[in-house]
Amino acid sequence: MSALVLDGKALAQKTEEELSARVAVLKEKSGGQTPILATILVGDDPASATYVKMKGNACRRIGMDSMQVELPSSTTTEELLAKIEALNANPNVHGILLQHPVPAQIDERACFDAISLEKDVDGVTCLGFGRMAMGEEAYGCATPKGIMRLLEAYNIEMEGKHAVVVGRSPILGKPMAAMLLNANATVTICHSRTQDLAEHIRRADIVVGAVGKPEFIKAEWIKDSAVVVDAGYHPGGVGDIELGPLTERVAAYTPVPGGVGPMTINTLIYQSVDSGERKIG
Amino acid sequence: MSALVLDGKALAQKTEEELSARVAVLKEKSGGQTPILATILVGDDPASATYVKMKGNACRRIGMDSMQVELPSSTTTEELLAKIEALNANPNVHGILLQHPVPAQIDERACFDAISLEKDVDGVTCLGFGRMAMGEEAYGCATPKGIMRLLEAYNIEMEGKHAVVVGRSPILGKPMAAMLLNANATVTICHSRTQDLAEHIRRADIVVGAVGKPEFIKAEWIKDSAVVVDAGYHPGGVGDIELGPLTERVAAYTPVPGGVGPMTINTLIYQSVDSGERKIG
Repeated sequence: MSALVLDGKALAQKTEEELSARVAVLKEKSGGQTPILATILVGDDPASATYVKMKGNACRRIGMDSMQVELPSSTTTEELLAKIEALNANPNVHGILLQHPVPAQIDERACFDAISLEKDVDGVTCLGFGRMAMGEEAYGCATPKGIMRLLEAYNIEMEGKHAVVVGRSPILGKPMAAMLLNANATVTICHSRTQDLAEHIRRADIVVGAVGKPEFIKAEWIKDSAVVVDAGYHPGGVGDIELGPLTERVAAYTPVPGGVGPMTINTLIYQSVDSGERKIG
Repeated sequence: MSALVLDGKALAQKTEEELSARVAVLKEKSGGQTPILATILVGDDPASATYVKMKGNACRRIGMDSMQVELPSSTTTEELLAKIEALNANPNVHGILLQHPVPAQIDERACFDAISLEKDVDGVTCLGFGRMAMGEEAYGCATPKGIMRLLEAYNIEMEGKHAVVVGRSPILGKPMAAMLLNANATVTICHSRTQDLAEHIRRADIVVGAVGKPEFIKAEWIKDSAVVVDAGYHPGGVGDIELGPLTERVAAYTPVPGGVGPMTINTLIYQSVDSGERKIG
């Protein structure tokens, strides 16, 4: 039997239709106002520029605006903080995205944490993470929140299941573990210092690969009934998990590409529309 | 072979001597100033009153002061928030403890989160939790931080070990899991919805019992080489773990009483002295 494909691309497209309708309602009610996402790009890394452009395009597809802030690679922490404070104070801005990574001389954590909670639609602040982990209202970090939205859309049962998250980065592994715990899964967090990684993964009902190494997680470690979530993307269109041998035998999996990837940007605009509705509505 | 006893009472006493010396130095340098912990007790719950008194006594034992704020059980959220804001603004106050639980009409989470980060010496704010979990500077939540201090004092190896935390409360299980992860353990968080709890515990190198139910975790689930941490305390002097049969066969364990308990208040004053040193020093 073929595994269920958790089609992030399809869900993102369907969600964009719903978001377009919500933005249209908001415009109608407010005499033309739309949610606005401010994107901040520091320096001239081509990959970062592409990501920011994709995010701006996603905004436009659903009828909302983005405000593109571009700062030179020589920007200081103080200058970036001042820019973020100005965007926090700007009532026309409903969400702020600071594109990671910023140049090395900038204190990125301080800059992320300067984003006000209600505009942290990418879910990168320590405060937002802490609130989310404690079950308080906050926007979730975009990639893990996108994964949760995908699992929920396919009615994947999480309560009481054993979820194994491989990776513990601030914007993926850690918030992913907290979200799965909030969904009442039993959660194990594995990482580079984990002994017997294969043994941990063999026990997983839900596996999330978030290590950033191509096909690091082997198919043979994963049991037949597992739900497989691959948050990696590497040249050649492979993820963090050796997916090939799994597509016929596991319960469900996210394809690469077209699984987790489209849900990240989709969650960013989803949360931006929510923020806009709270302010404009 | 007998297990190593993780003697929290002895470590707390030894630490009090060190803290007394640090407070004396601070007094000497500053012309008589000491760190001050403000304790807030709302209502007249006798157990809470006793805890607050114990915390004040611990301050006095090491030569620092406590400022005892007592509010009636009819206090509103707004009144409590105003009190906390006043203490945040008071330069003579270096730490703030809001005794849990507060009367039901009060939004406890909002009041905890109103405590400023640098005075959150009990480690109860969402911001402090988020920062700690992300590896940023913040005071740890007192009980799990006390457990970490105890494990470190006995040189218990955590890196690469499989730690199973049973319980996911905001002030115990969740921060405990984050701290063990920061110490490079592989961490599993179990809770009331976990299936096969016994199986998870059988695999644990380090078990932390934080469920609040007397001897809920059975001795037979725990392997011989495990390090056993019992954060529970119940009438009759029993914890959350059936410790009796374990004392002769596991690697190490925290006794009840005299293990985790003394480390909680000790961590509160330890962090209060640190805060005082940063302000007065």
